[in-house]
Amino acid sequence: MDAHVAGGRFTRIARAAPDDEPAPEGTRTIEADGLHLAPSFSNGHTHAAMTLFRGWGDDLPLDTWLRERIWPAEARMTADDVHDGTRLAIVEMIRSGTTHFNDMYWHAPAIARAADELGVRAHIGAAFVDLGDDAVAERWWHAVEEWLEQRDQWGPRIRATVAPHAIYTVSPENLGRLGRLAERHDLLLHIHLSETAREVTDCVATHGVRPTGLLERHGLVNSRLVAAHGVHLDEREFTLLGDAGATVVTNPAANLKLAVGGIFDYPAAAAAGVRVVLGTDGVASNNNLDLFEELKLVALLQKHRANDPTTLAASAALDLATSTPADVFGLGPGRIEEGAPADFLLLDLSAPATCPGHDLASDLVYAASGSTVHTTVCDGRVLMCDRELEIADEEEILDAARSSARRLTTVV
Amino acid sequence: MDAHVAGGRFTRIARAAPDDEPAPEGTRTIEADGLHLAPSFSNGHTHAAMTLFRGWGDDLPLDTWLRERIWPAEARMTADDVHDGTRLAIVEMIRSGTTHFNDMYWHAPAIARAADELGVRAHIGAAFVDLGDDAVAERWWHAVEEWLEQRDQWGPRIRATVAPHAIYTVSPENLGRLGRLAERHDLLLHIHLSETAREVTDCVATHGVRPTGLLERHGLVNSRLVAAHGVHLDEREFTLLGDAGATVVTNPAANLKLAVGGIFDYPAAAAAGVRVVLGTDGVASNNNLDLFEELKLVALLQKHRANDPTTLAASAALDLATSTPADVFGLGPGRIEEGAPADFLLLDLSAPATCPGHDLASDLVYAASGSTVHTTVCDGRVLMCDRELEIADEEEILDAARSSARRLTTVV
Repeated sequence: MDAHVAGGRFTRIARAAPDDEPAPEGTRTIEADGLHLAPSFSNGHTHAAMTLFRGWGDDLPLDTWLRERIWPAEARMTADDVHDGTRLAIVEMIRSGTTHFNDMYWHAPAIARAADELGVRAHIGAAFVDLGDDAVAERWWHAVEEWLEQRDQWGPRIRATVAPHAIYTVSPENLGRLGRLAERHDLLLHIHLSETAREVTDCVATHGVRPTGLLERHGLVNSRLVAAHGVHLDEREFTLLGDAGATVVTNPAANLKLAVGGIFDYPAAAAAGVRVVLGTDGVASNNNLDLFEELKLVALLQKHRANDPTTLAASAALDLATSTPADVFGLGPGRIEEGAPADFLLLDLSAPATCPGHDLASDLVYAASGSTVHTTVCDGRVLMCDRELEIADEEEILDAARSSARRLTTVV
Repeated sequence: MDAHVAGGRFTRIARAAPDDEPAPEGTRTIEADGLHLAPSFSNGHTHAAMTLFRGWGDDLPLDTWLRERIWPAEARMTADDVHDGTRLAIVEMIRSGTTHFNDMYWHAPAIARAADELGVRAHIGAAFVDLGDDAVAERWWHAVEEWLEQRDQWGPRIRATVAPHAIYTVSPENLGRLGRLAERHDLLLHIHLSETAREVTDCVATHGVRPTGLLERHGLVNSRLVAAHGVHLDEREFTLLGDAGATVVTNPAANLKLAVGGIFDYPAAAAAGVRVVLGTDGVASNNNLDLFEELKLVALLQKHRANDPTTLAASAALDLATSTPADVFGLGPGRIEEGAPADFLLLDLSAPATCPGHDLASDLVYAASGSTVHTTVCDGRVLMCDRELEIADEEEILDAARSSARRLTTVV
């Protein structure tokens, strides 16, 4: 097979190269004999810069981990730290086949700078939290406005989202304001939703309605909504979300690791017409960004949850990281076809773990890992080839991340 | 650090090499600057040769998969096929850090030949099934006897087990005979136990007792017992197994993939004193042999099951693939120390996915994958170095496996 790329898109995909038609001058040719051409992945929910905290305080009670580790370290974080951590995350993503991520963190411009430099696509939400305090709210509003003003300087690979953290950290009034802001600017709205049972019971006690109902009351349940987790959604909530064309991002590893008390109900979401995409969450609760691992986990967990080994077959699982997020995030078809954005991978399936090769989708979901990725291309640009990072100096990025991480986690 | 190996054991582990003491002539030196020395893994439950069926009939109902795919293909399998499939499995294990496996399949001598050639350790059970039929039983007894006669010709890396398939495929009378056989020859007894809820209800209906009770009735509950799965064991069964010093092998990926209706209760097993080790099961229900994946999965699933993020911390999870199986299978301490068998790995943790490196155990369990393994050594012999297989011709092994797989799965 012979695939041609120009201007960031597939211009021709043919069975073989025609002998009489030389490639235009300056064209780069990658010999891909024995490699498999596949769409690259999208990671639907990240806090990319948290790579700096990978493995720092695992296996602790959630409260201890947040209060004694993460929050104090995050309070010391500068924009440069976020840039360093996000770069590390992006290198890890490129190495495991991901070229788009939907991020929620602070210092949004630093995240954008990292994604721009490293050639990937990103939706970047300036997180918003008010904790019911007007002074806190004012500070975060300032950051949101600043980000929305700057967002166009990065070109079309980088897009902004509005990102209220969750219903329990943002007041109903500000949820409504953020919903209207997203509508006015035609942006996606990224929020954590129904991650824990406690979020649901607290919401019912305080507001007399479950979390999705609260979002609906304030005008946030629509096709812009990208809700992370959704572990404790009930049938009526799935119907609300499905009817509105909303999206849920399932993060199976993080949900298990933090013991959130349930498993996302994929069959119910799919039956209600909810768009479901896959995410890793931040590495502090995963602890990597390899969507191959996450694909296997989501497919296995859904079989377990449904008590049925036919649930979420391999090819349907692949959609959660390719065609469905492409639809949600406006990334083209998420398939290899003429006219589609040239966001793709060359996969080397010659290793023992993917031998003998009876079924490609099965091998990708159940047997492969990120190390299967030979070449990663985004927007027609080669980011990694033959597992060598081409877009940046990998050692410099790792050194900077180690140095940031050391400073943030050293308590003086 | 400086580690010396001779005669298959660590002879000295010192902070640095002494300047005045040259290594004996003929000694091989591996420069391991920046690499981490760790014990290699043991895989507690495999059907290694099933690599030939990787991805062949996933996402089907169990019954359809067995009747229409696996059983007819297995019926065509020769000793050479088993040798080919087992070699593929062993190469995959070496690449992901495993140097010992506890196998149950047929054509035991072909499995032994593969393990012998490829330099790993194995416990090999000649499977036994009678399906309540004396003619079937006679055929399998013959294979068991043949294997026990041959078992010593392979040297100390290869050991035999007695391997009744399960309580629902072997009559109580033959269970008892096999238990006495194991005792007479001082061998471990490897069996599937309490994998599905149906096994339990059928056992209670037929025998008036749960599966572990049935094994006890026939003299099989003792320190020789290595029971795979144990998903549906109750508290009394855990007590029986723990008091007897028995072992349970948990296979989290396979249990989820086949939707066996539960998750092994590690805290209950540990509290009862059961020795717990980790396994992958055959790749047809996994679909790989990478114990790094399995370590992450077991640690995450146990947190989920217990609804507590502190359950089965990373360092305890590592024990399930190192020190505990070393104890069960007689492989030394399963740690890096002077006098211990030189079964070890050099791990390269310099990749982005294990950066910045706050916590080694966490990085190994939650962030690393098999591709972290730089060098694999078993019994003092280098099987792989710098990810190059040294013990055999990898391409020849993959080609042979592909050819066997094609023949077995082509229906004429």
